[in-house]
Amino acid sequence: MRKKISVLGSTGSIGVNTLEIISHLKDELEVVSLSVNTNVDLLLEQIILYKPKTVCIVSEDAYKKIIDDLDSFNIEVLKGRNGLLELAERDDVDIMVNALVGSPGMEPTIRAIKAGVNVALSNKESLVMAGGIINKELKKSGAKLFPVDSEHSAIWQCLRGEDLSDVDSLILTGSGGPFRKRKPSSFSKITIEEALKHPNWEMGKKITIDSATMMNKGLEVIEAYWLFGFKADKIKIVVHPQSIIHSMIEMKDGSIKAQMGVPDMKIPIQYALTYPRHVKAPWERINFFRCGDLTFQEPDFTRFPSIRLAFKALEISGSACAALNLANDYSVYRFLDGDIKFTDIPRINEMIIDQHPFIENPSIDDLFGLNNWVKNTVASF
Amino acid sequence: MRKKISVLGSTGSIGVNTLEIISHLKDELEVVSLSVNTNVDLLLEQIILYKPKTVCIVSEDAYKKIIDDLDSFNIEVLKGRNGLLELAERDDVDIMVNALVGSPGMEPTIRAIKAGVNVALSNKESLVMAGGIINKELKKSGAKLFPVDSEHSAIWQCLRGEDLSDVDSLILTGSGGPFRKRKPSSFSKITIEEALKHPNWEMGKKITIDSATMMNKGLEVIEAYWLFGFKADKIKIVVHPQSIIHSMIEMKDGSIKAQMGVPDMKIPIQYALTYPRHVKAPWERINFFRCGDLTFQEPDFTRFPSIRLAFKALEISGSACAALNLANDYSVYRFLDGDIKFTDIPRINEMIIDQHPFIENPSIDDLFGLNNWVKNTVASF
Repeated sequence: MRKKISVLGSTGSIGVNTLEIISHLKDELEVVSLSVNTNVDLLLEQIILYKPKTVCIVSEDAYKKIIDDLDSFNIEVLKGRNGLLELAERDDVDIMVNALVGSPGMEPTIRAIKAGVNVALSNKESLVMAGGIINKELKKSGAKLFPVDSEHSAIWQCLRGEDLSDVDSLILTGSGGPFRKRKPSSFSKITIEEALKHPNWEMGKKITIDSATMMNKGLEVIEAYWLFGFKADKIKIVVHPQSIIHSMIEMKDGSIKAQMGVPDMKIPIQYALTYPRHVKAPWERINFFRCGDLTFQEPDFTRFPSIRLAFKALEISGSACAALNLANDYSVYRFLDGDIKFTDIPRINEMIIDQHPFIENPSIDDLFGLNNWVKNTVASF
Repeated sequence: MRKKISVLGSTGSIGVNTLEIISHLKDELEVVSLSVNTNVDLLLEQIILYKPKTVCIVSEDAYKKIIDDLDSFNIEVLKGRNGLLELAERDDVDIMVNALVGSPGMEPTIRAIKAGVNVALSNKESLVMAGGIINKELKKSGAKLFPVDSEHSAIWQCLRGEDLSDVDSLILTGSGGPFRKRKPSSFSKITIEEALKHPNWEMGKKITIDSATMMNKGLEVIEAYWLFGFKADKIKIVVHPQSIIHSMIEMKDGSIKAQMGVPDMKIPIQYALTYPRHVKAPWERINFFRCGDLTFQEPDFTRFPSIRLAFKALEISGSACAALNLANDYSVYRFLDGDIKFTDIPRINEMIIDQHPFIENPSIDDLFGLNNWVKNTVASF
């Protein structure tokens, strides 16, 4: 029996990598459904190759553009945000890969878990926004969450077989992004093009900017907090520019376990799909005689105030992490639109944490309300 | 219930470290018996501190020297090689720590396993000499072998929770010893003092010389072969001068798991005693911001022919690994006695592999016969 997979966000970086893995593991995995936002040209190629039963096109314009071309396929076509949410709660799949970008990925995660579907989660914003709600729903439905982020996959792999109470701390590694050595005084002059050049990883635009601000590492701290149940002071960050060590755990006896590999998202994606097995794969292996020296540095809170913001939001708790995440979504898009400076991103994010209408135990509806408030507030900056 | 521990070789480097661990874990571990070869002064201190029920003094002279002083203790005293073997096969302990040096450690390992006692094995020569016999006896008695070598402990920790069939290869790291960069042409002039200076690890004399020739890494390849059941071409060596990564496993999907830590034998010893738990420990932790860069190199078969010899012995199989190990025991002692040159060690070892009376499936008695032949042959070199 092949595992049935749905891929939300199939034309993004994680989505495309997921489908490549399904190609090379076609005896074990099959595509049941795909969703895209706007890229219907690539969707058409994917339909021909992977023969999904259902597709969803979120953008109404894109839907109109392609719907006639889909007539010749025996395929169910959903549309819009509602179609996406409907797709997310179908339980005809074994794993839903959530490769959506930003906070819109949260609700589909919750819908899938409520339906008892295991989620391979690339959309870290789901946990950052609604970690408490998600953990409650996981318990209720028995569904499982498989991390796809390379750092969290590394920790997940290291924790395997260990008693959680024997683990002292989690150590998230991060490359430090393209501006690790740049003068702090020149950060306000960082251009979009500079920020989109990540030294090691090829990723989507949003996460590449998050890596440049190191907000990504901050969001990962919050993600690890919910995923593994460690307190904030037991989650550490080590800057490791080569991105060979993907993350580590430290045991109570001082023994460190690390997961390493070439910086290729296919490894964590495949592991989430083949878990608990590590299955043969065609990609390049790490060569220790050519990978160069591995180096480590302390994270720099002056250059990268976003890291501090994540710990601050965790300490405030309640709606603070969701507010930070929403603020970051909208401020990054404004930076990508050329509207604001690179250094405005953490400034806006901190302002939103401090000023948002705080809620102790936000419901999903509260988070939608918060979303509107943050969207308007960031827009008026 | 505290785990009952016996320590064979309690005054050597591993023995002393083992007792220090028992000191800090006195609520979980207790000493039942100790054995020493000659160092009865230290044994006396250990008796006062750890209150064993039984001790064994292997050297007859040392036994005579101390026996009257032991009158005042309510303690059973065994003597000689026979006393050691008797102690090894007692099943009044949960774990026997075999910290004996060289091939004399083999028989006590087998005796303990036959008696159904779990063995924490620092004496790698046991497996190098009699891996096939030991694995058979483990199956029969249900006893377990817990590796104490830092490399094998690392692999054991990494394998935890994994399906062995998902593991592609084992990667043993080694510091490369003190002569990693020394000109090969000057190897014949290496003095005993130079060879006894290991850059990272504090260990006994025999294993320190084995590290200098890198025979130690070769023996570890053979040990890993028997311990984890991997073929020789799936056991790799990576030179890693900092001794921070203690070894690694490579999964079939290219994911690498590594175990790391400060170079302190206490971590693997304690893990063998507290397995499957990682228990809180007082020693120094690794600090990634101060440990320096981690580097990797290919093992150099010209400087270190001993590595090649290990793979050669594994390929020949039968009695070849035992012959290599015995040859190395005696040639190292001749080097430490100032009798032969550093470069004579691998020369003698290879000669013994090539010329020893080969046996396809050696019994323990065959190995004793082989021991005599090798001893005489190396002495006559």
